[in-house]
Amino acid sequence: MVSKNEINFIVSLQKKKIRDEQRLFVIEGDKLVKEYLSARVRIKQLVAKPEFLNSLPLFLKKGIEEIIPASYEELKKISTLKTPHNALAVVEMPENAPDLSDLKKGLTVALDCVQDPGNLGTIIRAAAWFGLINIYCSPDCVDVYNPKVIQASMGATLQVKVFYTSLKEILAKAIAMNLPVYGAVLDGESIYSSRLADRGIILLGNESKGISDELLQVVTDKIAIPRLADSTPGIDSLNVSMAASVIFSEFTRSRGRQL
Amino acid sequence: MVSKNEINFIVSLQKKKIRDEQRLFVIEGDKLVKEYLSARVRIKQLVAKPEFLNSLPLFLKKGIEEIIPASYEELKKISTLKTPHNALAVVEMPENAPDLSDLKKGLTVALDCVQDPGNLGTIIRAAAWFGLINIYCSPDCVDVYNPKVIQASMGATLQVKVFYTSLKEILAKAIAMNLPVYGAVLDGESIYSSRLADRGIILLGNESKGISDELLQVVTDKIAIPRLADSTPGIDSLNVSMAASVIFSEFTRSRGRQL
Repeated sequence: MVSKNEINFIVSLQKKKIRDEQRLFVIEGDKLVKEYLSARVRIKQLVAKPEFLNSLPLFLKKGIEEIIPASYEELKKISTLKTPHNALAVVEMPENAPDLSDLKKGLTVALDCVQDPGNLGTIIRAAAWFGLINIYCSPDCVDVYNPKVIQASMGATLQVKVFYTSLKEILAKAIAMNLPVYGAVLDGESIYSSRLADRGIILLGNESKGISDELLQVVTDKIAIPRLADSTPGIDSLNVSMAASVIFSEFTRSRGRQL
Repeated sequence: MVSKNEINFIVSLQKKKIRDEQRLFVIEGDKLVKEYLSARVRIKQLVAKPEFLNSLPLFLKKGIEEIIPASYEELKKISTLKTPHNALAVVEMPENAPDLSDLKKGLTVALDCVQDPGNLGTIIRAAAWFGLINIYCSPDCVDVYNPKVIQASMGATLQVKVFYTSLKEILAKAIAMNLPVYGAVLDGESIYSSRLADRGIILLGNESKGISDELLQVVTDKIAIPRLADSTPGIDSLNVSMAASVIFSEFTRSRGRQL
């Protein structure tokens, strides 16, 4: 049984302000909750149907601060989804501090004002797939703990660290380290023929405005995904998360070629 | 002013059954409506704010059967979005008959039970970008005229023809024409090293189950997007629309290499 206070508290975490104050966020879904439990992330509350709780091995339950059995109706009240899953958890935010010396170690993603939660989540998922584990977001990007980002990232936030910071500083650091800054733009050089290094920054811009002028100035390599010449107007850009997938894939392929 | 009947009728088109009976679907958004008008698609009704209507050049208005000025409140009642755009149109479905001889002409996409509207829309958008203009969907795929598909495809349905039919037959035809059937699976050969032809079928499967066993039997080339070896569990697959983007991109790159 979930108390009214508990319901209100969990629902309040849909707001970024409250999440930041409490340093807590919510994950939903049987699979996702199990992945977080297996990853030994600190879980403050697990709210789930008794069947789900009974199915959990004891060692996974151990670290959970509070376990609250709930009915479908109660889960429905807390969930951000129309049809709630069987389980939902309140999770402590990890205390990730960016380590800029990581920039030298490989490819880092930088996102300038990516605002759609589905896009950010998908980019995180693609980054995890292609082994890119650090993403720097400008402060005006959508919050990584937004429920829709968590949903779209499908557990990839367990592997990929997302930091919010001034991209100007990050890019300046990268330049100072002699690293290339690849900017995805519409009029860049084809990624199929560009020289793609195994270290550097991959910078992607806002869904409609692209990369801001200020950051564009420090881009060292403008790259683009060529569009088939004979495609008619209408499609004036690829969605940023699709572009990210294709670009991450090209860097991976290119790295394989270099090995 | 939009009458109650008109509101009810347009809202009823959110249902696939009604869309199929009426052979009509709804598009939303200033940009999308303008693209459809420019593409000379038959528009049955244009419901929009007076400002939008005034901004339209006369020649674009000509073919529209009925123009209905509407207030924000009225648009809100009709829209599937929380915040409606300034314009919305009821559009006639094109009468596309599949021409199987097209299979010989290039790459064709086949989707087996892709159910998420965002995924189908994104795949259509990626297909348009990479110049793939025919998509065959199994009958259990989400409807291409679902408002969320239309939204995610961002006008790409103007260029890409989407057919619903038995994939078994399509694939059999392709095989009979000696065309390769590339199936995206997790344990396939790396797309970075596979030989990718400039003709054939690219087959993508359901979000959780992948390609059905029945269709898998006729796949001639199993392909996969390699995951970085050191990425930890959690991410067990790429989202189907991201996979589609990466695969379409690889075929494009490969084609460029062949030219």
